[in-house]
Amino acid sequence: MKYHFIGLLLVLSACGQPPAVAIDNPKIEQVSTFDVALNKSTQHDLESRFDSVLNPQNLNDWMKHMSSKPHHVGSPWSKQNAEFAAKLFESWGFESEIETFEVLVPFPKIRKLELVAPEKVSLQLQEPALKEDATSGITKDVLPGYNAFSADGNVTAELVFVNYGIPADYEELARMGIDVKGKIILAKYGGSWRGIKPKVAYEHGAIGCIMYSDPKDDGYVRGDVYPKGPFRMEHGVQRGSVLDMPMYPGDPLTPGYGAKGDVERLAIEDAPTIMKIPVMPISYADALPLLKALEGPVAPNSWKGGLPITYHVGPGPAKVNLHLEFDWKLRTAYNPVARMKGSVFPDEWIMRGNHHDGWAQGAADPISGMVSLMEEARAIGELAKTGWRPKRTLIYVGWDAEEPALLGSTEWVEYHRDDIRDKMVAYINTDGTGVGFLGVGGSHALEKFVNEVASEVQDPVQDVSLQDRNRARLRVNGNKDAEREDLRIYPLGAGSDYTAFIHHAGVPSLNLGFGGESSGGSYHSIYDSYDHYTRFSDGDFKYGITLSKVNGRLVLRLSESDILPFRFTNMAENIGTFIESNKKLAEEVKKETEQRNRLLNQNAYTIAGNPKKTYLPPKRLDNVPVFDFSPLDGAQKRLEASAWTYEKSLAGLKKGSLSAEQKSQVNRLLKDVEQAMSHPDGLPRRPWFQSMIYAPGFYTGYGVKTLPGIREGLEERNWDEVHKYIEEVAKALDRASAKINAAARILEGD
Amino acid sequence: MKYHFIGLLLVLSACGQPPAVAIDNPKIEQVSTFDVALNKSTQHDLESRFDSVLNPQNLNDWMKHMSSKPHHVGSPWSKQNAEFAAKLFESWGFESEIETFEVLVPFPKIRKLELVAPEKVSLQLQEPALKEDATSGITKDVLPGYNAFSADGNVTAELVFVNYGIPADYEELARMGIDVKGKIILAKYGGSWRGIKPKVAYEHGAIGCIMYSDPKDDGYVRGDVYPKGPFRMEHGVQRGSVLDMPMYPGDPLTPGYGAKGDVERLAIEDAPTIMKIPVMPISYADALPLLKALEGPVAPNSWKGGLPITYHVGPGPAKVNLHLEFDWKLRTAYNPVARMKGSVFPDEWIMRGNHHDGWAQGAADPISGMVSLMEEARAIGELAKTGWRPKRTLIYVGWDAEEPALLGSTEWVEYHRDDIRDKMVAYINTDGTGVGFLGVGGSHALEKFVNEVASEVQDPVQDVSLQDRNRARLRVNGNKDAEREDLRIYPLGAGSDYTAFIHHAGVPSLNLGFGGESSGGSYHSIYDSYDHYTRFSDGDFKYGITLSKVNGRLVLRLSESDILPFRFTNMAENIGTFIESNKKLAEEVKKETEQRNRLLNQNAYTIAGNPKKTYLPPKRLDNVPVFDFSPLDGAQKRLEASAWTYEKSLAGLKKGSLSAEQKSQVNRLLKDVEQAMSHPDGLPRRPWFQSMIYAPGFYTGYGVKTLPGIREGLEERNWDEVHKYIEEVAKALDRASAKINAAARILEGD
Repeated sequence: MKYHFIGLLLVLSACGQPPAVAIDNPKIEQVSTFDVALNKSTQHDLESRFDSVLNPQNLNDWMKHMSSKPHHVGSPWSKQNAEFAAKLFESWGFESEIETFEVLVPFPKIRKLELVAPEKVSLQLQEPALKEDATSGITKDVLPGYNAFSADGNVTAELVFVNYGIPADYEELARMGIDVKGKIILAKYGGSWRGIKPKVAYEHGAIGCIMYSDPKDDGYVRGDVYPKGPFRMEHGVQRGSVLDMPMYPGDPLTPGYGAKGDVERLAIEDAPTIMKIPVMPISYADALPLLKALEGPVAPNSWKGGLPITYHVGPGPAKVNLHLEFDWKLRTAYNPVARMKGSVFPDEWIMRGNHHDGWAQGAADPISGMVSLMEEARAIGELAKTGWRPKRTLIYVGWDAEEPALLGSTEWVEYHRDDIRDKMVAYINTDGTGVGFLGVGGSHALEKFVNEVASEVQDPVQDVSLQDRNRARLRVNGNKDAEREDLRIYPLGAGSDYTAFIHHAGVPSLNLGFGGESSGGSYHSIYDSYDHYTRFSDGDFKYGITLSKVNGRLVLRLSESDILPFRFTNMAENIGTFIESNKKLAEEVKKETEQRNRLLNQNAYTIAGNPKKTYLPPKRLDNVPVFDFSPLDGAQKRLEASAWTYEKSLAGLKKGSLSAEQKSQVNRLLKDVEQAMSHPDGLPRRPWFQSMIYAPGFYTGYGVKTLPGIREGLEERNWDEVHKYIEEVAKALDRASAKINAAARILEGD
Repeated sequence: MKYHFIGLLLVLSACGQPPAVAIDNPKIEQVSTFDVALNKSTQHDLESRFDSVLNPQNLNDWMKHMSSKPHHVGSPWSKQNAEFAAKLFESWGFESEIETFEVLVPFPKIRKLELVAPEKVSLQLQEPALKEDATSGITKDVLPGYNAFSADGNVTAELVFVNYGIPADYEELARMGIDVKGKIILAKYGGSWRGIKPKVAYEHGAIGCIMYSDPKDDGYVRGDVYPKGPFRMEHGVQRGSVLDMPMYPGDPLTPGYGAKGDVERLAIEDAPTIMKIPVMPISYADALPLLKALEGPVAPNSWKGGLPITYHVGPGPAKVNLHLEFDWKLRTAYNPVARMKGSVFPDEWIMRGNHHDGWAQGAADPISGMVSLMEEARAIGELAKTGWRPKRTLIYVGWDAEEPALLGSTEWVEYHRDDIRDKMVAYINTDGTGVGFLGVGGSHALEKFVNEVASEVQDPVQDVSLQDRNRARLRVNGNKDAEREDLRIYPLGAGSDYTAFIHHAGVPSLNLGFGGESSGGSYHSIYDSYDHYTRFSDGDFKYGITLSKVNGRLVLRLSESDILPFRFTNMAENIGTFIESNKKLAEEVKKETEQRNRLLNQNAYTIAGNPKKTYLPPKRLDNVPVFDFSPLDGAQKRLEASAWTYEKSLAGLKKGSLSAEQKSQVNRLLKDVEQAMSHPDGLPRRPWFQSMIYAPGFYTGYGVKTLPGIREGLEERNWDEVHKYIEEVAKALDRASAKINAAARILEGD
């Protein structure tokens, strides 16, 4: 990063920004958590005892039990699982309770889709029982293929195939001269979070939305299908929510506050996150006759899927009737919450969570992660039985109602927000797990800490550490960061229960799981079962146990460290890369704008066009102004300087030199850095999302946008927002620097 | 190019090369052909008269007639077409004859392929008659799907799917632990010229080769299939040659000399270009049961095609029996050759050719180009009827037996080689044509000339010149050369009848045709018919007529120019880009070698590998030495200087200052530049290919390799060849410079 570093300095001195703090010694040897905040041998001894308790058989037995029946929120088995977990937590020495919320979750009452022209074709709309899968024959309490928070509706219209149904696809449709107004769109799953598709379709005037899993993305093109192999078979359907969670997740009727008891609730028709048109997911077997019946232009190459047909766009002559009606009721979400009170810092909370509700039997998603979390809690309980107590308060939780809208976690965070912002040090999330490589996303203040742990835990199959295995993959892929001392963790978008913690409450968060060698297509179908998981994923639960080891260490080190293992040099460097990629985007937007307008001036689109095909020139774009990124560069520079100042102070710290009170002060400052980078007004058009550094994309969903105020301003061509958020992010970084500097001063005894 | 230019100078002075000729005025205004060598108004008048004669109805009528029956070499209708064309040429005022050669062309006698395990499945191996296609029901004289110059054989073995069957695919197979020794391989068409697949399969020990057209590359994935649309229907088969033409094309029994009468012929078993294993093409309908029956690893993503299955690699359990026997006979190739003697320079020849043989009815390939050539010849005949005579000798020819091995043209060139090298000024080839954009490949000494013509001929649909239309497409595609004054022409590989002219005889050559808006899948099937062509390609023959206009102008200007329109600044610049891309390749080979060996040292492949899948580390590579490109840089620099010196001399030329004898001397020197860049020893392992600048790839076939001695040395890691051919190409460029300098001196009256 040296080259980049110099580049920034030059920019700074040229633009008359506040002088960058001189960094005398950026190459200072960084100390480890053990050097300053933990007794190495005591901690390693604790962790060995933790490891020795772990038993894969428990994961197997619990998964078999918990995934034996459908267990979506509101089902009897979801309540049973919550009680099952709560009782176990209790038996392991935790104070355990089940905290409930009353949340809106619609279930389907009428669910009809048929092709009505050019000929009438009824669709199967069911996933068949398979003799190779013991729970696939269950019919009681099974939710059929549906999208939660679709609108009610009965619509009949011509069909248009819209590829993934993301904004870029509508630009392509416009060039083909095709309008979806008054039509029903058919979109492939993929390319964005599913809820984006009906939202964008509605914005373009469509009156209905059908989504299907194309075999190219999620079926036989990828590999052998179930039950021969793990991939999605022809009738498999991906259920899932289409609530507009990039606006705000959680209960659509109680935005920003907990859906407990008889709080005031919006009327359903006033809830802004509920979809405005009917939406339904289908299998590729059911999509085939619809796609076959389309005429009109042949789909662009990148739109084509894996079905044995020529993909056409329409509109029509295929016409469908889509009739959906839902049972709009409040359901009870059961969150089993287990606490073990801290012996030294009881008001500093470390939380571990995984949801327990699934769409059907949900073995991989979420039970594989839930049982790893439970085994981790059990092992900590075993340590406690020997007389050991955690210094900080540990909270283990199983979230309910994650699937329809992150309801259990979001309502919990909203309800306890003040306490959380005051006391919670870190939230560590899992959401199912598989086989292969450790994936870690989260707050970059934790990047160095996670790497420390990943370098100490061995891969259960290859004889190397988890970090070394990931590094080997980066090397083979030619990744430019393969030799970086700490491997990068990815920034968090949305998509699991960390969302309210990091984006709404400013809690430093992590999300972890194994994957890469357990690909398949059971996701959100009835085939996500114990049989599928044990045949095609972590059947011997070796990786599930390894995940317990990783998270156990994270929890135990966070708990036992006198000074929390937050480190900011990596964070500053990562934020530097976010700034650079936003600058690059600004340049690309400018270049693309100029290029397009020049081509329009040259009439090149028309001259190069095929006169036999409709392919209109794209719209002329408004000019892109010059953006002054120097305030942001300056703030990042100052953040980097603060981070190194803190490192220097930490390295020079003498053991025992700080009072308990001083330690508490430092720890509060450290945890508050994440909150300092938030803003109570949040992001444009979505105040619930308060981090200035990360957010799920408003038009991509799960996918993260770094420095989202700036990035989405560029993408949506709101130049005023770009200018504004360059300033806002700079201020956020300066607030973070202030916290870090204050912590450093305490360490230095000032 | 200025930046590049300076870079080269620096390299030169640093390496002690011969001093580059100083270029005082590289920005000299280049003159047009009209300014120095033609009377503009006379020539434009001639060309208007030429245009006014052209009639699309002739193209239609001749195509309907010539494509009404199968007309492969040796068929009655091929002979009829040759006689039909010869008679017309004669009627238009040409001296016309049919020149014959006796060439080896095998036809199938036994042609059997079936799946014998895990269950017995017989394949259809036939293209059905379609009511929408009038000639598809013809059965007399139709050659079924076969590959010419396959070996005879009766083999039974397990099947292995090898993607496109090019060398890189075998590296991937090796990593999967799969060996094709003793197996029969199944390869998709595409990714290389078809003859590469059995050659590489044989080199790896396979005993048979099956090739099929996958619907992703050539079927329903691309668009609607015949007869609904133009693309390949499920039973369509691509016939074609598998003779090892990258070694030498033409009659395998008479390498380097004409197969006329009773010349000495190799024994069939001694002919090095005939394939050593049986090879057969099939349709995707017939490939489906074979692919379905394969097990073993799932194919890598990039290997997967468009059939509705999971692609597996094998080997087996699918096992096939392939039984082929051919009728190895000499057949007569009939080349109608029509001459119009030059009135001023009778010993300077300009040749126009298109083959007339097809694999079946062959309407697009080749008749669409042949009828355009015939109309062009007719219009020239009409000019001659008014008393005009060409200054140079014009030769129009229809080649026979192009399809099996470029036989008609290659034997003609070999037979007349001395005359050709002495007299032929240029060869202009076409090989069918479609709708859309003018594509031009050829000798770069003709690049400026072709651009001059393309800027004067209008597109028949869009109201712009052909050059402007191509430029618009380059602009829309963001091509970096879109604003280059002359649009680049592509360098020629092999694949049509220009091969012997440019690569063996050193004749400046061009290849032209329209395309880009007439995609389809009739290639080498019985559906390449008049019905298909008129429905889906140039049905009103507007582009066929436009091609006549372009080629007519090329011929007429070449014929009438006092000084031939060869120009070398573009040639030197293009050769500079070839050098740069070879340097870049050398760097990439070095980088990739180091990267791979480092990963092996780090054991990264193993650590990152999935323990449940066989995926072996790749082989360690030998180190790449440093290559000194400075001799080549120096020679290119000198060539550039010569080119500009010539431009200066040309611009300063006074009309009438040169004697007829001086003009002849200049013209001879200009045409000899292409020969000067050849070497009688040819390329490594294939002396027949003598150009040092261009060649078809030894392991890619059609695809061109620029500076092939160097490039293939790098690709095949023969470092000695790289060193040697850097020197050889440098010498070739210096020989070219000498010719150009000599021409310039004559122009300056020295």
